[in-house]
Amino acid sequence: MAEVAILMGSDSDLAVMKDAAHILKHFSVEYEVAILSAHRLPKETVDFALEAEKKGLKVIIAGAGGAAHLAGVIAANTTIPVIGVPIMSTAMGGVDALYSTVQMPKGIPVATVAINGAANAGLLAISILALGNPELSRKIKEYRAKLADEVRNKGMRLVDLGIEGYILQKGGNKK
Amino acid sequence: MAEVAILMGSDSDLAVMKDAAHILKHFSVEYEVAILSAHRLPKETVDFALEAEKKGLKVIIAGAGGAAHLAGVIAANTTIPVIGVPIMSTAMGGVDALYSTVQMPKGIPVATVAINGAANAGLLAISILALGNPELSRKIKEYRAKLADEVRNKGMRLVDLGIEGYILQKGGNKK
Amino acid sequence: MAEVAILMGSDSDLAVMKDAAHILKHFSVEYEVAILSAHRLPKETVDFALEAEKKGLKVIIAGAGGAAHLAGVIAANTTIPVIGVPIMSTAMGGVDALYSTVQMPKGIPVATVAINGAANAGLLAISILALGNPELSRKIKEYRAKLADEVRNKGMRLVDLGIEGYILQKGGNKK
Amino acid sequence: MAEVAILMGSDSDLAVMKDAAHILKHFSVEYEVAILSAHRLPKETVDFALEAEKKGLKVIIAGAGGAAHLAGVIAANTTIPVIGVPIMSTAMGGVDALYSTVQMPKGIPVATVAINGAANAGLLAISILALGNPELSRKIKEYRAKLADEVRNKGMRLVDLGIEGYILQKGGNKK
Amino acid sequence: MAEVAILMGSDSDLAVMKDAAHILKHFSVEYEVAILSAHRLPKETVDFALEAEKKGLKVIIAGAGGAAHLAGVIAANTTIPVIGVPIMSTAMGGVDALYSTVQMPKGIPVATVAINGAANAGLLAISILALGNPELSRKIKEYRAKLADEVRNKGMRLVDLGIEGYILQKGGNKK
Amino acid sequence: MAEVAILMGSDSDLAVMKDAAHILKHFSVEYEVAILSAHRLPKETVDFALEAEKKGLKVIIAGAGGAAHLAGVIAANTTIPVIGVPIMSTAMGGVDALYSTVQMPKGIPVATVAINGAANAGLLAISILALGNPELSRKIKEYRAKLADEVRNKGMRLVDLGIEGYILQKGGNKK
Amino acid sequence: MAEVAILMGSDSDLAVMKDAAHILKHFSVEYEVAILSAHRLPKETVDFALEAEKKGLKVIIAGAGGAAHLAGVIAANTTIPVIGVPIMSTAMGGVDALYSTVQMPKGIPVATVAINGAANAGLLAISILALGNPELSRKIKEYRAKLADEVRNKGMRLVDLGIEGYILQKGGNKK
Amino acid sequence: MAEVAILMGSDSDLAVMKDAAHILKHFSVEYEVAILSAHRLPKETVDFALEAEKKGLKVIIAGAGGAAHLAGVIAANTTIPVIGVPIMSTAMGGVDALYSTVQMPKGIPVATVAINGAANAGLLAISILALGNPELSRKIKEYRAKLADEVRNKGMRLVDLGIEGYILQKGGNKK
Repeated sequence: MAEVAILMGSDSDLAVMKDAAHILKHFSVEYEVAILSAHRLPKETVDFALEAEKKGLKVIIAGAGGAAHLAGVIAANTTIPVIGVPIMSTAMGGVDALYSTVQMPKGIPVATVAINGAANAGLLAISILALGNPELSRKIKEYRAKLADEVRNKGMRLVDLGIEGYILQKGGNKK
Repeated sequence: MAEVAILMGSDSDLAVMKDAAHILKHFSVEYEVAILSAHRLPKETVDFALEAEKKGLKVIIAGAGGAAHLAGVIAANTTIPVIGVPIMSTAMGGVDALYSTVQMPKGIPVATVAINGAANAGLLAISILALGNPELSRKIKEYRAKLADEVRNKGMRLVDLGIEGYILQKGGNKK
Repeated sequence: MAEVAILMGSDSDLAVMKDAAHILKHFSVEYEVAILSAHRLPKETVDFALEAEKKGLKVIIAGAGGAAHLAGVIAANTTIPVIGVPIMSTAMGGVDALYSTVQMPKGIPVATVAINGAANAGLLAISILALGNPELSRKIKEYRAKLADEVRNKGMRLVDLGIEGYILQKGGNKK
Repeated sequence: MAEVAILMGSDSDLAVMKDAAHILKHFSVEYEVAILSAHRLPKETVDFALEAEKKGLKVIIAGAGGAAHLAGVIAANTTIPVIGVPIMSTAMGGVDALYSTVQMPKGIPVATVAINGAANAGLLAISILALGNPELSRKIKEYRAKLADEVRNKGMRLVDLGIEGYILQKGGNKK
Repeated sequence: MAEVAILMGSDSDLAVMKDAAHILKHFSVEYEVAILSAHRLPKETVDFALEAEKKGLKVIIAGAGGAAHLAGVIAANTTIPVIGVPIMSTAMGGVDALYSTVQMPKGIPVATVAINGAANAGLLAISILALGNPELSRKIKEYRAKLADEVRNKGMRLVDLGIEGYILQKGGNKK
Repeated sequence: MAEVAILMGSDSDLAVMKDAAHILKHFSVEYEVAILSAHRLPKETVDFALEAEKKGLKVIIAGAGGAAHLAGVIAANTTIPVIGVPIMSTAMGGVDALYSTVQMPKGIPVATVAINGAANAGLLAISILALGNPELSRKIKEYRAKLADEVRNKGMRLVDLGIEGYILQKGGNKK
Repeated sequence: MAEVAILMGSDSDLAVMKDAAHILKHFSVEYEVAILSAHRLPKETVDFALEAEKKGLKVIIAGAGGAAHLAGVIAANTTIPVIGVPIMSTAMGGVDALYSTVQMPKGIPVATVAINGAANAGLLAISILALGNPELSRKIKEYRAKLADEVRNKGMRLVDLGIEGYILQKGGNKK
Repeated sequence: MAEVAILMGSDSDLAVMKDAAHILKHFSVEYEVAILSAHRLPKETVDFALEAEKKGLKVIIAGAGGAAHLAGVIAANTTIPVIGVPIMSTAMGGVDALYSTVQMPKGIPVATVAINGAANAGLLAISILALGNPELSRKIKEYRAKLADEVRNKGMRLVDLGIEGYILQKGGNKK
């Protein structure tokens, strides 16, 4: 049974929102995915939010671009935490989606992450679920440690190879 | 029976949105006013939109600030024209409300006017209603003519009084 | 006889503005297209606006980029509804065109849609024409239903295929 | 024992951040308050974050203005959820604080609310705590219902009094 | 006979635009003032531009706020130089007027000065007229020298009085 | 003997600034070109400005990107008209160059054109020179008429071919 | 003999720039103050920069608003470190001055601090001078410790008094 | 022994930050490079800053994108000068990194250079080190002279070849 739902306004958001799913999978947290639209499927969107808690969902992640109302409309119809992912579209570098997601009125918060920050939306969901789940809390510390190790290793390689060497090798790895 | 509805997200928007009402009154168009909120009264808001056409409404004007979803949520639930008024709040000079109102996805347009442009929202509603109403069409032409006359008169007074004289008199009129 | 005019400031706007024409065609609404420029063809532009109502036009859609004055100048010279489409050009992500189109002074509204939102301009025109045309009103409800079905179908396919499967198939469909 | 910490970069942020405390008090959730600064008290700030979970804190709310690093630095040193409140200062309308808070890199999310949105930060904390607390979950639904009632009552008063009457009465209430 | 026209979209722009008049007066250049509006007096505005050159006008200064089309519409209808003054209104800090004035399409330039920069519009007009007028050219050099002297004198007073003394004295002068 | 100078901060600006040269050539106005930099060649830049009027220059066009000080520094050292061209570089879409060019302090105007608007800088120079040159004044009217004809012809072709036909043919012309 | 110069474009910048002087005084570093303007006193400004190093100056702090060229022009004419303070003026919240100061081209850096951040400009100058001055280096550590103590004390008072008590007392202290 | 450290938040910043290293190499100043992250390696980052002065570092250059806290966190933990390089990432054109780096609170300055301006960060470090190093001071003057010569030579070639010739030759050189 899914604990997290990943919603998106359009299938074109999938390229960004899949990062949230990868994180949840990595932490073995059950999730469901849905394409819902505050504007094109308003009734299903409201119904989804109204049913969310009863279905056992604990956190909802919602990503949308432009006048991004999805997260706000979901948040208006449920009291479980809603995480908003502003998605960058062609014009304005995603600032429209950011403002539409984060500037919610008093009473109905949306926990907003960076533009296209779906991976962080997943991690924020994990950190919320981990409050009542020591195993998940342990895993998130491991994840952080691994993240630190990766940066640390890159740093040591940079010291070893020097800047030019590192850039060359990195280019080589791409091939 | 009201032909136009003027909706606003909060009673603090009234200072702006009353301008739309004044325009409609000036043109003797029946209107109703309501405080509805995509976030705080989501069900009433959707229900209002779903009932709007049946009730005989022809145009809906919706004003909201911040992550201004009101016009978009109304537009998602009706097919009559929806006019959005982005309302300026303390931060960001109203740009958040503008982007949240105007950047609607394909399929669900909101006819957006200027930040705090409620009077123009009223006039746009009139111009839409005037398409099927020759009397209203005549009146809107009169209104334009009067508007032009006012500017023309100010211009003539400016030529008469000169800049300093005009500024003095204008200051005097205020008192 | 055309009920809607689609105007654009330059033939480079055609790639965007054709979306408005497609919508009107889809709804079997007669339209005419013209390249007019508030700056390069000022007289024709004003004359077009002055003649519009007499010619039987009911709505004008005007798209322009940069200091986008076309919609505003048209609106200044007619009282039928004018819909403005801000068009994105290289610099500024279209914000210049958005501000030049939407921030109209009191008295002369332009119903502004999203940057490059020509399809929505078409739909807004339809929703205005539908007020006096039950057949069009029915069709716009059908269009909305079809739009919802498309999102719904994509959503179901996403549930069936999972994220990775959906992305793969979508990539495959492109080929 | 406090479940939530409310941190702020300076005592000048108190006028905004007190709204978070009011919400927590309303929900009878224990909280502690501290002035910490990623820049002026870096060691205490890091130590606070490192000790947070062991002390029993479940959520941290951090508000700061300008180059607002407080929430990010806290989030880098704990794995419990961190909510960021961008605070508006004189220049830029708070956009600097918003970008500094929300645009976090992959791995370290900050749940960002609106500029000066401390009340919503409190409510987001409540919605997170409510996941493991049915009493709190019930209370947040009550809060929402009360919020809706307030808007509903204002709406009814507006219908009763009309726009002018409502504005007059509101002005009168202020006195 | 006026060589320069100072146009403005509304009499509320007079507080800014009078600075252009003061400059022209200072240089004993004849000017005329008019309130014209691309949107509210479109025909007079176009006619003014079409007649400008024949009337002997050499430069036109046009100030407007919001979707500031005045300078652009004037420029579209005359080939004498047009100077645009973007005027700050409540929302957006004048950025809307700046973009609407400066981002003109190829073919129709507007010489744009700073937001509310009407004095500089006057000086730019003088520098243009001075090309064919050695007396004016001499005077503008004098003006520059005086401007430099003022800054120089303030600088010497600052060195004499020190920062605190200067601030005190300046405060005192205000009274 | 050159009447106009076209200055640019770097040879990377040439791709934009050549448009000013093409306009001047088209109007048979003598011009000189120089790479000068307020920051990298400060002395030459100041000297150029100080000598400009004596050399017979009547207008200076200066283009630069980023913290674009070139036009301002030139304007500070001469009293002939200076036209500024803000040039778009990778970051910020050219907004940095626009603000650095247009927001000049009282006393020293720069006649600013659109971002990358070098052709319009050329035309503005022509319109200034035309004040004392009836032949040039005639030519600029011809240029405008030709510009209008081009738009008119495109418009007629669009009416002939329809949208799809026009797009096809335009695509074909590119090959 | 002054080691630091504090330059400003206008005496209206003094209200901000005095903060830099206070810091230098606090650290007993000799400084001189001057009003110089890249635009209104270009020759003195360049001469000042050219003489700076010979006079014994080690760091120059330059503050200006709008198209803020002062720091850049100084930096172009000396090789000692130049610190730029963007100053907020009415329009745009200081963003114009920030971009004009920070976006310098390759070759000529300006060390930019926050909008109106003159105190930090002073501190940055101190940290540069401290590199060759152990006494100053010791003092800057003391300053930091005192700064931390102040925040720490406020934090303890907040814990003691609680939010409401602290706000009351703070309000009381103002009287 | 390194006098300068070049820090970056991620190895993806290397493409920009290498420009700082090239400058330091050019001036034969010893430097070290490290990947450190205020968010992903918070302890190492703080420790690096705390040790910096003792290790003999005199200047630290720190580059990061998004909510760029690296330079600020380093500056909070050392009193030697810290130079911040805002790095452009996909969304927002680098404005988020600029605001996060430059808008530091009173007490903790970061010497900010242009977006992606790593070369200038290197040059700023050199100008700081040159204060106590006459040899370096001489070299930086040479560098400036060479820079000026390059621009001068390009300028002369442009005069020789004309615009078209120069563009052709430049294109040819690229091949």
